[in-house]
Amino acid sequence: MTEPKAGLTAGCATGTTAEPEQRPGDGHEAALLLERARAAVDPVLRAAIGSLPGPIRRIALYHFGWEHADGTPADGGSGKAIRPALVLAAASSLGGPAARAAAVRAAAAVELVHNFTLLHDDVMDRDTTRRHRPTAWTVFGASEAILAGDALQALALRLLAEDRHPAAPAAAVRLAGCVIELCAGQHADTAMERLGPGEVTLDETLVMAESKTGALLGCACAIGALYAQAADPDVAALDAFGRAAGLAFQLIDDVIGIWGDPLRTGKPAGADLAARKKSLPVVAALTSGTPAAAELAALYTAPRQKEDLEHLARTVERAGGRDWAQTQAADRMARAVQEVARAVPDPEAAGGLLALAEFVTRRST
Amino acid sequence: MTEPKAGLTAGCATGTTAEPEQRPGDGHEAALLLERARAAVDPVLRAAIGSLPGPIRRIALYHFGWEHADGTPADGGSGKAIRPALVLAAASSLGGPAARAAAVRAAAAVELVHNFTLLHDDVMDRDTTRRHRPTAWTVFGASEAILAGDALQALALRLLAEDRHPAAPAAAVRLAGCVIELCAGQHADTAMERLGPGEVTLDETLVMAESKTGALLGCACAIGALYAQAADPDVAALDAFGRAAGLAFQLIDDVIGIWGDPLRTGKPAGADLAARKKSLPVVAALTSGTPAAAELAALYTAPRQKEDLEHLARTVERAGGRDWAQTQAADRMARAVQEVARAVPDPEAAGGLLALAEFVTRRST
Repeated sequence: MTEPKAGLTAGCATGTTAEPEQRPGDGHEAALLLERARAAVDPVLRAAIGSLPGPIRRIALYHFGWEHADGTPADGGSGKAIRPALVLAAASSLGGPAARAAAVRAAAAVELVHNFTLLHDDVMDRDTTRRHRPTAWTVFGASEAILAGDALQALALRLLAEDRHPAAPAAAVRLAGCVIELCAGQHADTAMERLGPGEVTLDETLVMAESKTGALLGCACAIGALYAQAADPDVAALDAFGRAAGLAFQLIDDVIGIWGDPLRTGKPAGADLAARKKSLPVVAALTSGTPAAAELAALYTAPRQKEDLEHLARTVERAGGRDWAQTQAADRMARAVQEVARAVPDPEAAGGLLALAEFVTRRST
Repeated sequence: MTEPKAGLTAGCATGTTAEPEQRPGDGHEAALLLERARAAVDPVLRAAIGSLPGPIRRIALYHFGWEHADGTPADGGSGKAIRPALVLAAASSLGGPAARAAAVRAAAAVELVHNFTLLHDDVMDRDTTRRHRPTAWTVFGASEAILAGDALQALALRLLAEDRHPAAPAAAVRLAGCVIELCAGQHADTAMERLGPGEVTLDETLVMAESKTGALLGCACAIGALYAQAADPDVAALDAFGRAAGLAFQLIDDVIGIWGDPLRTGKPAGADLAARKKSLPVVAALTSGTPAAAELAALYTAPRQKEDLEHLARTVERAGGRDWAQTQAADRMARAVQEVARAVPDPEAAGGLLALAEFVTRRST
């Protein structure tokens, strides 16, 4: 699963169905929602993590940014709470403040699942940095990080099993199903990275990206809808909303991974190309059937001598990878907006979800 | 978590409260219970695993012994179904056939959790053989085995979330809590193996062994009791029964790991000593305060030249490690029998649980 990185400006316009005073695009509402979600969910998360046995708890507290490696308190950095905010916004949009209040425990469960997958993905991908700190496995060991992830998954599902809200069992079924989809997505990602540039199809890459990034955002929204005791079609529409927004985010994140401004992203432009990552724009370029596609495939398989990342980026662009990704992102965001409108016709009630989707894909703050 | 290995004869007598015609010690009843448990649970397990996405499903099917590495069918070898049999025997002992029938899904969930931990433990411990076959990570890769384990945990908790029996939420809370304890046990095991022979206490080692081996057997029995809608003290008694039996098993398994007959165990005598494993008899010996303890500590830290495993084994024995382990195993079995008698006073109703405990620790078949 991917965490949103940093600010970007994407070519996709959203929020057009919201009232002018909502201004989901200005980022202010999203920031407020994220802050309120963090405030509501953190006590539940801290209590849940506090219940873990000592050594596992310590790894979790470090991973969440609440402790340094030596066990001394640290202040935050535990991510942007986008998924809990989506749970609460979805509950609120369909069931008002009572549903939002009822869904806090479920929002914490979703955040625990997200963090379990981050712990495991970092081990598998051998990533050494997460949220500007050394990853947990580099500090505590790979086995230890795997065990902490296992425990966080159990903790998430225990939170829902302890919840007496009538929506809790259905939420647990969805969340567990989502974990399975996340695993399949990560598996596909690992498998695809081992394939040659000519062996990956765009459809497979889109399915993988939806599983890795869209599934949990969709699940978060669907769980919020369940706590509002929404009808099945509305639950499905919010799931589709989250998935579409998640895929839009991934497309834009992949664009940044190639052409992004390092000052704004914390990631040098071309980082994904240097790693020969088969990200969405790259696979779109490779499968474009253009002369530039063949050139790109040759560059992706050639021995790495003097890296010319700018030339690689230009080749992806010439093969249409950039345009495709930006158009796709805009299409997915339009789809997301449609899905929200279907489940939540009142633009005011839908404002929070739209603001969060906009934030995820655009990060105007 | 440990799997029972092979036949052994331990010095602990059990089944003394059972009627003579029950003869839990002859292994026949246990074999029947295991076979019936496998027959009841396998269809649920196969359907659950069949619902996984393709690549993850393939790893799970291999791990369960239902497919070869190339995806062709294999027949079984998926373990002895001890944990599902305990769930069903506990349900039956307190609630009769109706409770047993109601608990089948939960029994499958317990078996999925057990197998999730095996998949992950094999990766962490770099074990290459499980149930006489190459471990899943050696066939499919470590990341892939981690993902399959993650998915099996989710599948287990999804099975319970889908179950409308009134006991299902409490069972899910227990099972998730047990996963956390299993993780803590595995963490402690890994940490202790890194310590010097003088740095590990016997209490810590016992707690670790109970978490790694006793917790899931206790949880299985407690979940069975929940499906019989038993009162809280009876649920607790069956949990204590399973934990005590599990620890007895571990003690005896550790004795085999040092003095066992390789023809009967499939593991050469002294294997745990060759690996310098700080198993229970070894830690008891090391902390015995005897002259042999100091000798053993020196042998455990000395550079490994010509291995004299027989000498090592004799040193553990001279330091009292073998006697201690056998006495402890007998005490734990006596405790297990007491706990069953407390919750299930009718010896006939208790017979199944006692037969399984006897089987786990003695394996007379």
